[in-house]
Amino acid sequence: MELNDVPTPALVLDRSRLETNTRFMAQRASELGVQLRPHMKTAKSAEVARIATAGQSGGITVSTPAEARYFLAHGFSDITYAVGLAPARIDDALALVRDGANLNVLTDNPAVAAALAARAASATLPHPLGVLIEIDCGDGRGGLQPDAPGLTKLAETLNAPNLQLAGVLTHAGHSYACRSRDEIAGIAEQERAAAVFAAERLRQAGHACETVSVGSTPTATHAHELDGVSEMRPGVYMFGDLDQVGLGSLPLERLAVSVLASVIGVYPDRVLIDAGGLALSKDASAQRHGTDIGYGLVMNLQGELLPGAYVAKANQEHGIVRGLRQQLAPGDRLRVLPNHVCMTAAAHPGYYVVDGGVEVQARWPRINGWEQWS
Amino acid sequence: MELNDVPTPALVLDRSRLETNTRFMAQRASELGVQLRPHMKTAKSAEVARIATAGQSGGITVSTPAEARYFLAHGFSDITYAVGLAPARIDDALALVRDGANLNVLTDNPAVAAALAARAASATLPHPLGVLIEIDCGDGRGGLQPDAPGLTKLAETLNAPNLQLAGVLTHAGHSYACRSRDEIAGIAEQERAAAVFAAERLRQAGHACETVSVGSTPTATHAHELDGVSEMRPGVYMFGDLDQVGLGSLPLERLAVSVLASVIGVYPDRVLIDAGGLALSKDASAQRHGTDIGYGLVMNLQGELLPGAYVAKANQEHGIVRGLRQQLAPGDRLRVLPNHVCMTAAAHPGYYVVDGGVEVQARWPRINGWEQWS
Repeated sequence: MELNDVPTPALVLDRSRLETNTRFMAQRASELGVQLRPHMKTAKSAEVARIATAGQSGGITVSTPAEARYFLAHGFSDITYAVGLAPARIDDALALVRDGANLNVLTDNPAVAAALAARAASATLPHPLGVLIEIDCGDGRGGLQPDAPGLTKLAETLNAPNLQLAGVLTHAGHSYACRSRDEIAGIAEQERAAAVFAAERLRQAGHACETVSVGSTPTATHAHELDGVSEMRPGVYMFGDLDQVGLGSLPLERLAVSVLASVIGVYPDRVLIDAGGLALSKDASAQRHGTDIGYGLVMNLQGELLPGAYVAKANQEHGIVRGLRQQLAPGDRLRVLPNHVCMTAAAHPGYYVVDGGVEVQARWPRINGWEQWS
Repeated sequence: MELNDVPTPALVLDRSRLETNTRFMAQRASELGVQLRPHMKTAKSAEVARIATAGQSGGITVSTPAEARYFLAHGFSDITYAVGLAPARIDDALALVRDGANLNVLTDNPAVAAALAARAASATLPHPLGVLIEIDCGDGRGGLQPDAPGLTKLAETLNAPNLQLAGVLTHAGHSYACRSRDEIAGIAEQERAAAVFAAERLRQAGHACETVSVGSTPTATHAHELDGVSEMRPGVYMFGDLDQVGLGSLPLERLAVSVLASVIGVYPDRVLIDAGGLALSKDASAQRHGTDIGYGLVMNLQGELLPGAYVAKANQEHGIVRGLRQQLAPGDRLRVLPNHVCMTAAAHPGYYVVDGGVEVQARWPRINGWEQWS
């Protein structure tokens, strides 16, 4: 099967580029002296997870209970679920431990910690459920401030049967707003310092706090040092996207995922493709890096960039491509590099895998959504 | 089951509101003297299609071959696939006719028309495949200009064995950029006039051109008259969303779909919910109608609006809610009214159906995506 035979729109993954990106980040983790716990929220694929964890400890990060369940079923038992735990998800977490997962969950909330302690106490588990305390390193999303008076109290609440205070976790989401590598390196230091400071406070209060977890793709790429950190959790680096190119995380030539589309209309100033807002997502993040980005840059079927061409508008099933310098015909195929691949990939059931060319070597499914309906 | 027991995030559909909205549009079609061919691209559900077509001809509009196949399997045989046909989809269209669909496809392109004529000629079909010619009424997406010299030539190409020129179709997507009802009514007249003019040209050239199809929710709501039009194809009116409220298509009290979410973090100036960019979509369309809309307005579990509360930021699995005037706790449930429900709903496997309250009366699946992977 070749890309010309794939029903469009569809997701294409270039395996060589994926492997280049995963080697790069493994090297970064090695240089920085930390474990790499890749975040699978972007790829949501066991095949990609195997490549991303090659030569690593095997631990992964996930963003939904559905991902945790899927990756456990595919042999990944060391899992951090890195979104603040909803009380209604406590039973899901305990069931994952019962089924063999070495699972860490996340909270910063005394009521959730108390509910966790109560539910875990009445559970029968092969080993404790790990709990990480979320720290806010400046992003302003979730987490306690590193110097919050409630930090040690929270740790005490988690000192309960069938629970283990695993450590602290923070995420420098505000690195995405940076305008330079130096600025990102500054945020990376803020991220490191916040996590290490909180961990030290917990240790001084008598808690073990083994895990000191940081990470985003920009900070993992540009951090100068991560002293005191035990692991990092970047995710989007595996594929990259136009926003990450704009942030300096990787060059355009390493973007590994694109959306395959067919031309369905040809006009003097534009062509229409059958990849619109659903197939590309309406995420406009990369537009801040340039005016001619729209909903993605456009390549030919072979994956060569068509200079000047971009998806200027995205309706539900229509993409309007402008800036093309060549004449196209209906049925011609294009590939769109997405703004934000985490959003784009989630609309698709999986990847058509190529290796530099147009031959489809494999289909790798994804675990999308939160609940599978029969 | 009640909404408190539903795993979050999830899509909630209020059946009474849906029925109010479908009755409203049926009444509009009746007043305007046109058939209603509801566009199922928003709802993607056979149960919703049954309600939307109650008392109508039964014809529907779809946006993907996957929808066409699904609705045919659920008893809807009169189907217009209203996205320009990709040449690789011609065989899908012929197969649908073979399997019993009275299918219309859409093109404005001579090469696609020629390929259709060639493929259809060698097919064995129970009845012809209908073809609509797409007309551009000012939107600048797809379609021939109504006075395009190529219009009658295209109709002649489609005068071929196993094909039937069904008529013309246009879509006033530019009605979404309007700032007033009068302006929308003006676009509706432009939409009507363009389609009727093109149809008249075809009739003068000896083509039957039975179908004169227009429609978007804003123009269907505000058109003064549709003389010469045979049908309209609105879709999002069934549910409505904040963008449609801003456009004046319906009042806030009639929005039928919301995203159920759980509180996962509580802070002095915000709460975090487990519905982020994937569960809500990153569509920012309604933000142009007001500053405090973000990625959606927030209701309580019962569906009562919480004045001032909105999703200020949406990361992949996190929504940041600001403007709340009440104290919430982790596990509390909220419902988010989306900006653009076509995009939001597509992330979910289906609807938890309620009828004004919190009791779940049914689960209705959706046909998402373009291809089902096993």
